This record gives sequence, structure tokens and C-alpha cells, in this order.
Amino acid sequence: MPNKATKGLVYLVGAGPGDPELITAKGLRCIRTADVLIYDYLAAKAFLSHVSAACECIYVGKKGGDHTLSQDSINALIVEKAAAGNVVTRLKGGDPFIFGRGGEEAEVLVEAGIPFEVVPGVTSAIAAPAYAGIPLTHRDYTSTLAFVTGHEDPTKKSSSIDWPSLAKGIGTLVFFMGVKNLPSIVERLVQNGRAPETPVALVRWGTTSRHRTVTGTLKTIVARAKAAAMKAPAIIVVGKVVELRDTLQWFERRPLLGKRIVVTPRPCPGQRPRRETHGYGG
Amino acid sequence: MPNKATKGLVYLVGAGPGDPELITAKGLRCIRTADVLIYDYLAAKAFLSHVSAACECIYVGKKGGDHTLSQDSINALIVEKAAAGNVVTRLKGGDPFIFGRGGEEAEVLVEAGIPFEVVPGVTSAIAAPAYAGIPLTHRDYTSTLAFVTGHEDPTKKSSSIDWPSLAKGIGTLVFFMGVKNLPSIVERLVQNGRAPETPVALVRWGTTSRHRTVTGTLKTIVARAKAAAMKAPAIIVVGKVVELRDTLQWFERRPLLGKRIVVTPRPCPGQRPRRETHGYGG
Repeated sequence: MPNKATKGLVYLVGAGPGDPELITAKGLRCIRTADVLIYDYLAAKAFLSHVSAACECIYVGKKGGDHTLSQDSINALIVEKAAAGNVVTRLKGGDPFIFGRGGEEAEVLVEAGIPFEVVPGVTSAIAAPAYAGIPLTHRDYTSTLAFVTGHEDPTKKSSSIDWPSLAKGIGTLVFFMGVKNLPSIVERLVQNGRAPETPVALVRWGTTSRHRTVTGTLKTIVARAKAAAMKAPAIIVVGKVVELRDTLQWFERRPLLGKRIVVTPRPCPGQRPRRETHGYGG
Repeated sequence: MPNKATKGLVYLVGAGPGDPELITAKGLRCIRTADVLIYDYLAAKAFLSHVSAACECIYVGKKGGDHTLSQDSINALIVEKAAAGNVVTRLKGGDPFIFGRGGEEAEVLVEAGIPFEVVPGVTSAIAAPAYAGIPLTHRDYTSTLAFVTGHEDPTKKSSSIDWPSLAKGIGTLVFFMGVKNLPSIVERLVQNGRAPETPVALVRWGTTSRHRTVTGTLKTIVARAKAAAMKAPAIIVVGKVVELRDTLQWFERRPLLGKRIVVTPRPCPGQRPRRETHGYGG
């Protein structure tokens, strides 16, 4: 058993899908007890209020489209901080082991002899559709569900994805980070035998105050997504379960979702009014 | 907007995989504010301490193998309690929309005109392998992951599962509730082209103090599971990512996991000692 005082301890924590209330109790505890918080999570600002006064908070996520640190540098930083004897909480969006590179970070920790714990989180692949009124499984619709990284360029020759199996063999498909590749994902699925009438939903900023959904079919979704200017971060759901949204949507029906509450303090004479805006729901 | 005072409100809440700390902050809030708690979750006892003094708690889960209530009766009970104006928290294991029949319960609520919210939870399909040291995705291993209900008898002729696609087309497979059908699941996968050397893990009572893992390959797992007397509740993970467990397992290496801490108070003369046992980690 390594000595925590000299070796530290790392928590690989999933922060959940965006709604700050969807973090786990254990995840919150790991934030509260951290000596060092290393985070790359877009919505993590909501969690910074939970850290101790002495906690060092380091942002390693994207800044203007680019990562501020490479994965290798992030790995080195985690090891360095833990090796100095700190309790390090590594906060990641969604779940650390679902397309989150948490496995790679854990491997580095094992190699460095640093103890770690994995704190699973609610993945946006499940929660974003749930907030859009789409259960990914349903007895009357499907008994299979697949998660696919949409990161890979589907036009590349040596795709590691078996498109015929996905297109015809699986009921519900969820693509992560695939909005940029939406046209080629749709094309591959139809080419490989998925009916063009299959319902599709895009959910952007799922579970947050900016939550937005666009639906269509494999035939219409590319044009609809373009018309709605849907961009990352969004996930794509393909399958008959998308139809259930017509009945089950609830989050987007809440009266204040997406509305901006504008607070306009009475201006002093000669001053322009100051406007403060607050989103709702995230 | 329905009037909450007359129509009530239902929260469909995922309690997470078993470790009581893996419930979400929102899930805990829904338990605390409930007028009625309807639960079928095996490990839910840990949550009962959070309800208000006035909360009515109704268990509708399994009792000695049988459900105490049918799904239709559960649906009727939720509607009845909400229609009486109560805030009803419906607590389910894992995530309500992943093989949890939450979609069906939501449909019933829509039909009855009762407002509801879905509170996603950490699914055991992801968390149990994570506690066993198995990331379901990993850049070097796979870019696809499928969840399959193992409930269906795979020997039945008209399987709704496309076994050839699952066997050859998807990197990581997770079967829910499939332990009873393990021999036929394994047979189907091998028959349809999955290499018999493919690693397999069974995780029983994942993330709880009774967490236990058995590993093997498609060739050996049936015998190994039998030798270890593995039964439900357990999930099955098939795929190369299972190999990572050799490096990444952490939860089962914690010194007190599975140990029972026996507290033996000094007996009074003539009395037999009373034994209290406490699991660790769940």
C-alpha cells in the first residue's frame, strides 16, 4: 500500500453531462477534498465554488478551439502533482471511461506507482437524449444500443468502424463528437442499408441552459442541422426511439428554458443601462 | 402548465449502480423533497435515511425472486399518488432510461397528464466495469461499444438481436441481466465469428461491498463462472478492453473490500454473543 503522504492519490472523476446537479455525491466529495483540481470540463465553473480555499485549480481544457495542454502534458501534470503528495481530483466531462481518455490517464498513474480511484459520472450520451425526451432503450423499440466515437473521419479508407453492422445490426446508435462529420455518418448508414426514414436527433449542450434539439430523418437531418446552425458540442441519436420524443419531451417544455432573464438596474442620470443576463436550467 | 397542487409531480430518478455515493446531487434532492418514494432498487436502503419524516416509502421491487407488484400496478400506483397532489420520487437502479422501463412509466404519466422530470443516473453497465478496472472504450482498443439486454432467451428462434453484427461489428459488448443465459450468449458470439480467445469479464454486485469479478475468454468463461458460482445481479463484458483490468484494477485491491468487520460485544453472563456484520465500500 503506497504511502499517501508521499505518493498522493488521484481521483479520476466524471462531472456528468452539464447540468451541475448531475454530478455524483462522490464526485462532489472529491472536489471538496482536493488539494489540486485539474479540469477540462466546459461547465466546470459551477463546481469551482466547492473547492477548499487552499485548493490549486488548473484548467487544461480547450481555449479558443485548441487544447491548452496536450494529453501527454496533462498526464505529466497529474503525476507531478500527485507525486508531491497531493490529493488530485481530475475532473472530466461525462464519464471518465467513455471516450474520455480516462483509461490512458489511469495507465500513466499505474506506471508511476500512484494510487487512484475512478468515480464514474453520468454520460451525456444517455443524459442529453433523456433531457430531450428520448429513452435510448425501450421494450417496444429495441434491445440493442451502441455508442460510437464520431471523431473519426468516416471517409477515411481504413475506418475502424464496421458500418454495415452498425447500420443494420443495432437498434439505437449514439455518436459522440460527430456533428462535423454528420453528412458522411448519414451517408455511410444509408449506403449500408439503414432506412432513410430512420428518425435522427441532434442534441447540443444537452442538459444545460443552452440545451437545444433538432430532429429529422437520415434523409432530412443534414439540411435541418445546417438550417439550425447546429455545431459541437452535440451528440447524434439514430433510431426509432427518437419518435418517443414527440410524447416524452419535458425539459424543453419548462417555461424558462433558454430564456434569458434580463436584469436592468435603473440607470443613473446620463448612464446607459447595465444589462446582466442569466441562463436558466444549467 | 398543470397545477402542481392538484396534479403532483413525478421524478423518475436513477439511483446509480450500487455504491450509494454514486447517486447524483439532483437524485438526492428528489429523495429529500419527496412526499412519496416508490423504489425497487436493491441497494436503496442507504437512501431511506434521506427522506423527510412525513414521506411515505413504498417498496415495489423483488421479494424472494418475484416482483411484489407488476409493472402495470407500479404505473397505476405512481399515477394515483401523483394525481393526489404529491411529489413522487420513483427511484430505480442505474439509469431510468437504460433497460429500466422508465420510458414506459413516462408514457403513462403523459397519458395521465402528470408532469414529470427525468433524473439520469450512473448506469451499472459503465460503473461496474470501471470499478473492476475495465474502461469500456480506449483509443488503442475500440471505437464502438454496445449495450444489449441479456434478458431475452438467445435460443429462441425469432431473436430481436442481430448476433452476426454484434459478434463481428462491435468492439466492446455489455450484456445486462444475462448471467443465466451466459452459455447461449457465448455460443452465439462464437458461432457468429467472434474469436474464442476474446476476453470476457463478469462483474457481480458491481461497485458495492459485495463487488466480485470473474474473468476468462469466450472459451473458458462458462466453466469459470460456474466454478465461482456467479449469479445475478451481474453484467457481462466482452472485448479486448477486459485485458486492461490486469493493469488498472483498483477497487478490489483496497484492503477491506469484501471483508466483513465483525463487531462482537462482550456478552452478558449466560448470553450468546451477538454478532453484527458490516460490509465495506458499498
